Amino acid sequence: MRRWPRRNDADSIRARRDAIRAVVGDEPLAHDEEAWTRAQEAHTGAAVIPVSVVGPLVVELGQYELEEPAGTLRERGREREEILVPLAHTEGGLSASVSRGLKAAAASGGIRTYVVHDRMTRASCFICKDTEQAVVLAAWLESTVEELRAFLSGLDDPSLSKRARLREVKTHIVGPMCHVLWAWTTGDACGPNMMTRNSYALNMGYVMQRGPVKPERAILEANMGGDKKPSYEFFGSGHGKTVLAEVTLGEEAVRRVLQTTVDDLLELSWAGTHGAVASGMQSVAFTPASAVAALYAATGQDLGMVGTSSMAHGTAHRSSDGGLHAAIRFPGLEVGTVGGGTTLPYARSWLALLGCAGSGKVYRFAQIVAATALALEISASAAMATAGSENFFRAHHERGGLR
Amino acid sequence: MRRWPRRNDADSIRARRDAIRAVVGDEPLAHDEEAWTRAQEAHTGAAVIPVSVVGPLVVELGQYELEEPAGTLRERGREREEILVPLAHTEGGLSASVSRGLKAAAASGGIRTYVVHDRMTRASCFICKDTEQAVVLAAWLESTVEELRAFLSGLDDPSLSKRARLREVKTHIVGPMCHVLWAWTTGDACGPNMMTRNSYALNMGYVMQRGPVKPERAILEANMGGDKKPSYEFFGSGHGKTVLAEVTLGEEAVRRVLQTTVDDLLELSWAGTHGAVASGMQSVAFTPASAVAALYAATGQDLGMVGTSSMAHGTAHRSSDGGLHAAIRFPGLEVGTVGGGTTLPYARSWLALLGCAGSGKVYRFAQIVAATALALEISASAAMATAGSENFFRAHHERGGLR
Amino acid sequence: MRRWPRRNDADSIRARRDAIRAVVGDEPLAHDEEAWTRAQEAHTGAAVIPVSVVGPLVVELGQYELEEPAGTLRERGREREEILVPLAHTEGGLSASVSRGLKAAAASGGIRTYVVHDRMTRASCFICKDTEQAVVLAAWLESTVEELRAFLSGLDDPSLSKRARLREVKTHIVGPMCHVLWAWTTGDACGPNMMTRNSYALNMGYVMQRGPVKPERAILEANMGGDKKPSYEFFGSGHGKTVLAEVTLGEEAVRRVLQTTVDDLLELSWAGTHGAVASGMQSVAFTPASAVAALYAATGQDLGMVGTSSMAHGTAHRSSDGGLHAAIRFPGLEVGTVGGGTTLPYARSWLALLGCAGSGKVYRFAQIVAATALALEISASAAMATAGSENFFRAHHERGGLR
Amino acid sequence: MRRWPRRNDADSIRARRDAIRAVVGDEPLAHDEEAWTRAQEAHTGAAVIPVSVVGPLVVELGQYELEEPAGTLRERGREREEILVPLAHTEGGLSASVSRGLKAAAASGGIRTYVVHDRMTRASCFICKDTEQAVVLAAWLESTVEELRAFLSGLDDPSLSKRARLREVKTHIVGPMCHVLWAWTTGDACGPNMMTRNSYALNMGYVMQRGPVKPERAILEANMGGDKKPSYEFFGSGHGKTVLAEVTLGEEAVRRVLQTTVDDLLELSWAGTHGAVASGMQSVAFTPASAVAALYAATGQDLGMVGTSSMAHGTAHRSSDGGLHAAIRFPGLEVGTVGGGTTLPYARSWLALLGCAGSGKVYRFAQIVAATALALEISASAAMATAGSENFFRAHHERGGLR
Repeated sequence: MRRWPRRNDADSIRARRDAIRAVVGDEPLAHDEEAWTRAQEAHTGAAVIPVSVVGPLVVELGQYELEEPAGTLRERGREREEILVPLAHTEGGLSASVSRGLKAAAASGGIRTYVVHDRMTRASCFICKDTEQAVVLAAWLESTVEELRAFLSGLDDPSLSKRARLREVKTHIVGPMCHVLWAWTTGDACGPNMMTRNSYALNMGYVMQRGPVKPERAILEANMGGDKKPSYEFFGSGHGKTVLAEVTLGEEAVRRVLQTTVDDLLELSWAGTHGAVASGMQSVAFTPASAVAALYAATGQDLGMVGTSSMAHGTAHRSSDGGLHAAIRFPGLEVGTVGGGTTLPYARSWLALLGCAGSGKVYRFAQIVAATALALEISASAAMATAGSENFFRAHHERGGLR
Repeated sequence: MRRWPRRNDADSIRARRDAIRAVVGDEPLAHDEEAWTRAQEAHTGAAVIPVSVVGPLVVELGQYELEEPAGTLRERGREREEILVPLAHTEGGLSASVSRGLKAAAASGGIRTYVVHDRMTRASCFICKDTEQAVVLAAWLESTVEELRAFLSGLDDPSLSKRARLREVKTHIVGPMCHVLWAWTTGDACGPNMMTRNSYALNMGYVMQRGPVKPERAILEANMGGDKKPSYEFFGSGHGKTVLAEVTLGEEAVRRVLQTTVDDLLELSWAGTHGAVASGMQSVAFTPASAVAALYAATGQDLGMVGTSSMAHGTAHRSSDGGLHAAIRFPGLEVGTVGGGTTLPYARSWLALLGCAGSGKVYRFAQIVAATALALEISASAAMATAGSENFFRAHHERGGLR
Repeated sequence: MRRWPRRNDADSIRARRDAIRAVVGDEPLAHDEEAWTRAQEAHTGAAVIPVSVVGPLVVELGQYELEEPAGTLRERGREREEILVPLAHTEGGLSASVSRGLKAAAASGGIRTYVVHDRMTRASCFICKDTEQAVVLAAWLESTVEELRAFLSGLDDPSLSKRARLREVKTHIVGPMCHVLWAWTTGDACGPNMMTRNSYALNMGYVMQRGPVKPERAILEANMGGDKKPSYEFFGSGHGKTVLAEVTLGEEAVRRVLQTTVDDLLELSWAGTHGAVASGMQSVAFTPASAVAALYAATGQDLGMVGTSSMAHGTAHRSSDGGLHAAIRFPGLEVGTVGGGTTLPYARSWLALLGCAGSGKVYRFAQIVAATALALEISASAAMATAGSENFFRAHHERGGLR
Repeated sequence: MRRWPRRNDADSIRARRDAIRAVVGDEPLAHDEEAWTRAQEAHTGAAVIPVSVVGPLVVELGQYELEEPAGTLRERGREREEILVPLAHTEGGLSASVSRGLKAAAASGGIRTYVVHDRMTRASCFICKDTEQAVVLAAWLESTVEELRAFLSGLDDPSLSKRARLREVKTHIVGPMCHVLWAWTTGDACGPNMMTRNSYALNMGYVMQRGPVKPERAILEANMGGDKKPSYEFFGSGHGKTVLAEVTLGEEAVRRVLQTTVDDLLELSWAGTHGAVASGMQSVAFTPASAVAALYAATGQDLGMVGTSSMAHGTAHRSSDGGLHAAIRFPGLEVGTVGGGTTLPYARSWLALLGCAGSGKVYRFAQIVAATALALEISASAAMATAGSENFFRAHHERGGLR
């Protein structure tokens, strides 16, 4: 094969298209948005995923702001809304199931959501001469947060982001390594780029220059956190937005809309939780990734983060008021409403449908993701909880899969 | 809000579009493929994701077939190819990084891939009266595999799939629960639907009717496996296709193409592996999910499976021949080349570019995914291995993020 | 310090004792059993742990034998017994709590136990030139089990154990490594020594000599299994004896003996299970290690295996007959009734009390461990389930800790 | 069986002994220390474990104190010492292996240890009506630490411990549950009893009385931490003393004392680390539990904590000075030098040998445990790193197991 053109100039794009047109046809090469070429290198064509719109999601959302300088979330108020939800996917039955879950939730007074934590973390690592030096470095780092913040504010470097604000520094020493979790808030952007740039500045401009020991090596990211791979560190401490969603399903809604009973749902939850323990499954839940992926694909989120963002811990509990309390905890929804794929056509439109396009919307969006996923959990669980999971079978039989 | 239309008749589709056009604009509502309405309920519009085409991927692929009746994989031959790879994503720098990794691999003789296992598993659960009954049931199930197969073949039920073939039955008793892993091969389809239907038939038509004890409850799926949630069960034993990819990078390619050294890559791998252990990260790797998601989005795979399919175990080792041996193990690539989203426009075209559209192509496709991901691992690691991870920072600075 | 004597000749022992007598006093140096010097090097003195005897444990035990040649467990019968249980420990309240659990179980018809699996595994690793060679080696190993067995039987090497019988061979390829799980049964011994010796013979005498590829290195044990470190591999597939214990507690026994209610126990179990999920705890149970350690210390088991043997999965479920079904699964009780510490004074006596001294007793012993641990789970849970866990507090207040 | 006597009055003890003497013989019933009857209920006899004394351990220990009121560890100084180490066990070869590791370490300048964290944690749980109430409770708890401390100091309740000091409060919300990690320092005691009593007072005396919502239930311990079960929460954040130990082995010591090479040790470490990842093993190390158990059994520590205390993360790295840097991190050594089993005969003597009996010695003791375990890691690894792990085989062949 002769050298494949890698750039996004008009000639290269045309050359690529010409080279493959005979195989792929015209259709996938037809979409031309100027924005595409800013989104990626070697732009050539398009993938199109159908989008359903389901709803309404009846939900009580919290409004949040970060208190400075600690970066603690404060709830300013709560508001009840009805929202239409776009789902980009090709899984037969998924939109119908979300719809049904939304209906059951609505019939039960709606879903309520809470954002309880907000941090993006870059896990750098300093390899020292030995453990002694790593201990010295760690102690210094944990006591230097103010200076690190001041250093960043003082820099006049266009590669730095002012929106990514350093909040905490956590160290973990293993062998001669001093791992450092730089924890940031990143405004309304998801933030991996901005925190990477700022962390680089901290590592190379401050730690390697002014630290009490001279590490042999600085690595920007060395897996102490959870960079696109699920981890217990972030399952516990969170990454992106940590969001809780809950609903107390009425017995009537369970019976009429979900066609099962509270007892059957509790039994399913019990077996599924213990099955998850037995298989070493971190996310004790049903199918949160299906909802997360469908919303991420519609709204320009990073699909490589579907796995980490889908870490979830679901529960079901008989409510003391009657009915069933169903809830889900997402420790790490890595979402943005500005920057990255959210700036692109289509994505921006679907974000607009959610009332989530642009600044000041990221907590809203994170909550909608969690609420939608909870609706799917409810409906899928209900299908599974019927005798022999008959309704789950039926959904797969009647709607599942284009054969 | 008045009742939201949920169906896919023309009136409902139009009603949904009219209701949201003012907010989302015409663009995302413009795509009309008859196929979309078969793919999902409440179809309304489209999401478009730009696709790059990078390459060539120089790879030696194995050809495999299942030996009957055991369903063991047999390698029929190996062939060296050059393949162009479509990546659907919006992450600046990703396509360039895959390109660079492909180039380094090509300069080192190419990547080699192996499929070592092929099973899709439905994890059903029978809740018995007590442990004693679960023990009896488990012993019976493990000794009844032939009868279960015969039962399935004998059924003349259109809801059943003949392509999903039962291979093994594994039980796991916890409390009064007898969890059962029904392990299937599913032809060229990913297979969740077909194995769900067949497992339902086994549960309700055979086990509940003829078992030595009468379970109190049968549940089709209860998390003993790994249904869209990463699990150690499947990290170990596999789900979908278990694929290995390897390359031995020459020192020259490492220096010239990747702009780092073998020593630096080994040191990064060491720190990243121990960081992953420290954070309780199952997938010891760099960023496999980015490559998996980009290929899945282009080719109509289930994006809800990005997290499970991205479970990975990467290694780096100084080769006894000189250079660096880099490898990655994907225990569970849940892929298909027929059925589901792969039948849709765009997806089918991009599969065609890979030579993977239709029957007899699923092992090929799985290997291409693994090989592409390895290329990204190489390149991203190299950027991180430079002093202070400068090149990783630069990639994020120059290409990362649409601001 | 002058050179410290390391051997067990009389002079060395006396020299060590003389050197420390002024500090430790006569008491810990007074125990002289000829056996001690066979048990360890540098023998100097003794540790004494008080032993309680509690009971009776009312239990229905299974009798098992291994079917040859597959090594599958077959239950030959079941018998109900009353057994006194020795517990070596210094934890105030522990013996009282086990007693209470035993009483509640006895009042509910007793505990029933099952051995469902029996394997000891040595996890060797062959480092090959590359993944290709590891793939070839793995395929060969999996198809060579009969030859490997024949090779072992044919050897006339006194270092080999005839009691350790090779049952299965499982491979796992990562990078250029071919990990191999050699699965053995080891008679009535725990077996780590005998399987180590036999695995060495396989590795060096067969695989390295006759394999289709020549690995660069053979390692006897490389952590693919779970050698004194808990692992998901063995949490799932087992190590030593996999034992289940169950009891259906009557409501009356729960109220009168355990002073709580079925509802309160279920609620505790629910919260404790989800707490365990949240903390990334593998063993979803209460305090199985306390019982395992106390029985292991009394009976000469390897205390370094307390952690792995205590891996456990406990459940509680409302019984359809009324009352509460409580059960626990121990995937890996690493126990013996011959060999190692079980041959020593004291240990042998306490094994005799259990009717477990010597050959043919290992399944019996494993079941007694599991049953005793279940009794403790019941009682400790009951204390915790009272309002505010008052009875748990009281036990700690009144009996906990020598102050 | 007639009613088994459960108490520790002279008649009951005699009755138990008389009942079992015919089976167990006189020997295990002969030890009579008044202290035994304070250590446990139903005291009847004794277990005796032989103790070796090995050494010297050449180690540089840190001296630490807690800074008030934060409870941060401050290193006051470091001192080099030579210490004799008592090991209670029956595993042939273990004492010899520790000896060899100590010798190699001594020949390399000795081991250095660091205590980096000190907390004991009781993981309580408040079950609320719903998630909303759990969110409110969590926010209140995190802001109420000062008041909680004041409440405890103000109580004049003999059931409370003044030594257990509340340091931090961490909440984790799942479903309607508000889990709370009460983090304490516990002086020189291990502390589970004292923190249990104090946590009960907080739960019932403060939270349930004065909280902003009224939880439906308070549970003293619900597994959010790691109560005698290994957990990722404590693997990361620590429990008891978090201790690091390191040594830089000289090439000469590796060759002469350990009879292997730095290269071979690095290769073993690489394979063993990846084996541990593949098996889902949390503790990437060799056999830390053997050393921990032997020291715990000698010194009256809680043997039920062997598993949790043995959580470990070991590393090996080529030192920039030449030689091999070997290190181990113990996140949770649950040790005491006062209270519990440490007050008993024998235990107190062996603590005295270590210079660790009584107050002000707990950090010293924790460091000795870590250093001894590192010595075993070194020696066992060296045996495994020889060709085919021959020396590991030999140790098992020649010393392993009383046959």
